[in-house]
Amino acid sequence: MSKPRAIIAGRGQLPLDLAAAAPEALFVSFHGIEGEGLPAAAHHHRARLERLGALFATLRAAGVGEVVFAGALNRADLGTAGFDDRTQALLPRIAAAMQRGDDGLLREIIAIFAEEGFATIAAPDLAPELVLAPGTHLGPDPGPAPLADTARGREILAATGPLDLGQAVVVEGGLCLGIETLQGTDALLDFVARTPAHLRRPAGARGVLVKDAKPGQDLRIDMPTIGPGTLAGAKAAGLAGIMVGAGRVIVLDRDEIAREAERLGLFVAAFS
Amino acid sequence: MSKPRAIIAGRGQLPLDLAAAAPEALFVSFHGIEGEGLPAAAHHHRARLERLGALFATLRAAGVGEVVFAGALNRADLGTAGFDDRTQALLPRIAAAMQRGDDGLLREIIAIFAEEGFATIAAPDLAPELVLAPGTHLGPDPGPAPLADTARGREILAATGPLDLGQAVVVEGGLCLGIETLQGTDALLDFVARTPAHLRRPAGARGVLVKDAKPGQDLRIDMPTIGPGTLAGAKAAGLAGIMVGAGRVIVLDRDEIAREAERLGLFVAAFS
Repeated sequence: MSKPRAIIAGRGQLPLDLAAAAPEALFVSFHGIEGEGLPAAAHHHRARLERLGALFATLRAAGVGEVVFAGALNRADLGTAGFDDRTQALLPRIAAAMQRGDDGLLREIIAIFAEEGFATIAAPDLAPELVLAPGTHLGPDPGPAPLADTARGREILAATGPLDLGQAVVVEGGLCLGIETLQGTDALLDFVARTPAHLRRPAGARGVLVKDAKPGQDLRIDMPTIGPGTLAGAKAAGLAGIMVGAGRVIVLDRDEIAREAERLGLFVAAFS
Repeated sequence: MSKPRAIIAGRGQLPLDLAAAAPEALFVSFHGIEGEGLPAAAHHHRARLERLGALFATLRAAGVGEVVFAGALNRADLGTAGFDDRTQALLPRIAAAMQRGDDGLLREIIAIFAEEGFATIAAPDLAPELVLAPGTHLGPDPGPAPLADTARGREILAATGPLDLGQAVVVEGGLCLGIETLQGTDALLDFVARTPAHLRRPAGARGVLVKDAKPGQDLRIDMPTIGPGTLAGAKAAGLAGIMVGAGRVIVLDRDEIAREAERLGLFVAAFS
């Protein structure tokens, strides 16, 4: 039996999906940024961001060895309970890291947890069913038709990846219909949906959304994610399906995605 | 005195701007794809795409040495006058080139004209005022503020250029708000205009549209172009201005752009 693990929960659906997939893990939520539908687990600890010393003590007492960060911790309300000594000492580092954006903050928090003896692992290391295995799919079998567009999409992502841009593109019949920028995947799909009809369907092709992690991305930080909304957006954009990097893109609410993919006739498939 | 030149006019505003800038050039338009406001020049020849032999004879009789292709020639109505022998002989080459898209067709036509003794030059070689010189601008002086965003935009274009994607991006405060794909620059600016306000203006920055030719692009074929509509789109997208590659981007209707740039408070400036 390995050491207990903890889910350090920020906002959104991912912490809840993780808790459902790993009910034995200690679930740590923070005052002020707890979402709806918290797991009714025996292992639920409600912490305060301004009292990290207390949190470390709790994790240590529970024997926790590894933690997973899930969901954004930024823009949290620091409350009025007052900083404990450990947090007070860490404040300069945290404040400096906040200047480096969301990823920079999480990188520093991972470093701080490591110094306290807690290793950070990626969400799929705790719950492998959060990602797709190579060659697997949800919904209809994509067959070989999307392979050429997927290859073209990956070629574009390989070029844009080092530039720290979004890591999703839409390709149809070899032509790029959109590249994700900071507005995110839903905005990209909305843009594609607005494409004039005479620019669509060269040789009858129906396009694919190709989404992957950045080359060399630390999967413990800000993994790319799709959910039921992504599937609905791909449908509205007239695409044939979604291709994701196997093991590198979290599929939220997988059961609903599988049902909706069948109903809408869109595939969600993984390349290695 | 150098040899006469000819403007081979397709659709749109560019042939008319060229004719106004080079009134001494022979203006060749084609039956079925002539736009509004043809120049009332003494040197206007109305040709037929299906009678290229007759066109070559006319150019030769006029002593033409160099030609400029301006505006798209594709999707022309071939009319009912019948192919002349020269066109008939060229049809297999033209038909094959059409399979390679608009650029491929124009490349083959340039090759055919070269075989007939007519060299093709780029539009700015005929009318240098169609493009901006390095460091010049229309509208207000941009000052140094947009330089960092322009550099970031050019870095992105350098990465996407070899992929044959669009050659325009929007950058604001170092963040990329959009990358042109086949929908074109107007669609890119419309996408940027839809960006949620909370994602705009990091540190108060106002963004720029950065537009340039592809690295190594043949400027005789499909030069990137901006016009008054691009300026209006940049305004609607909340940008500070437009930065273009000096000598590599055609500025259509320059007088109106200069007036509108002043009125709207947006710059149009050129980097080398």
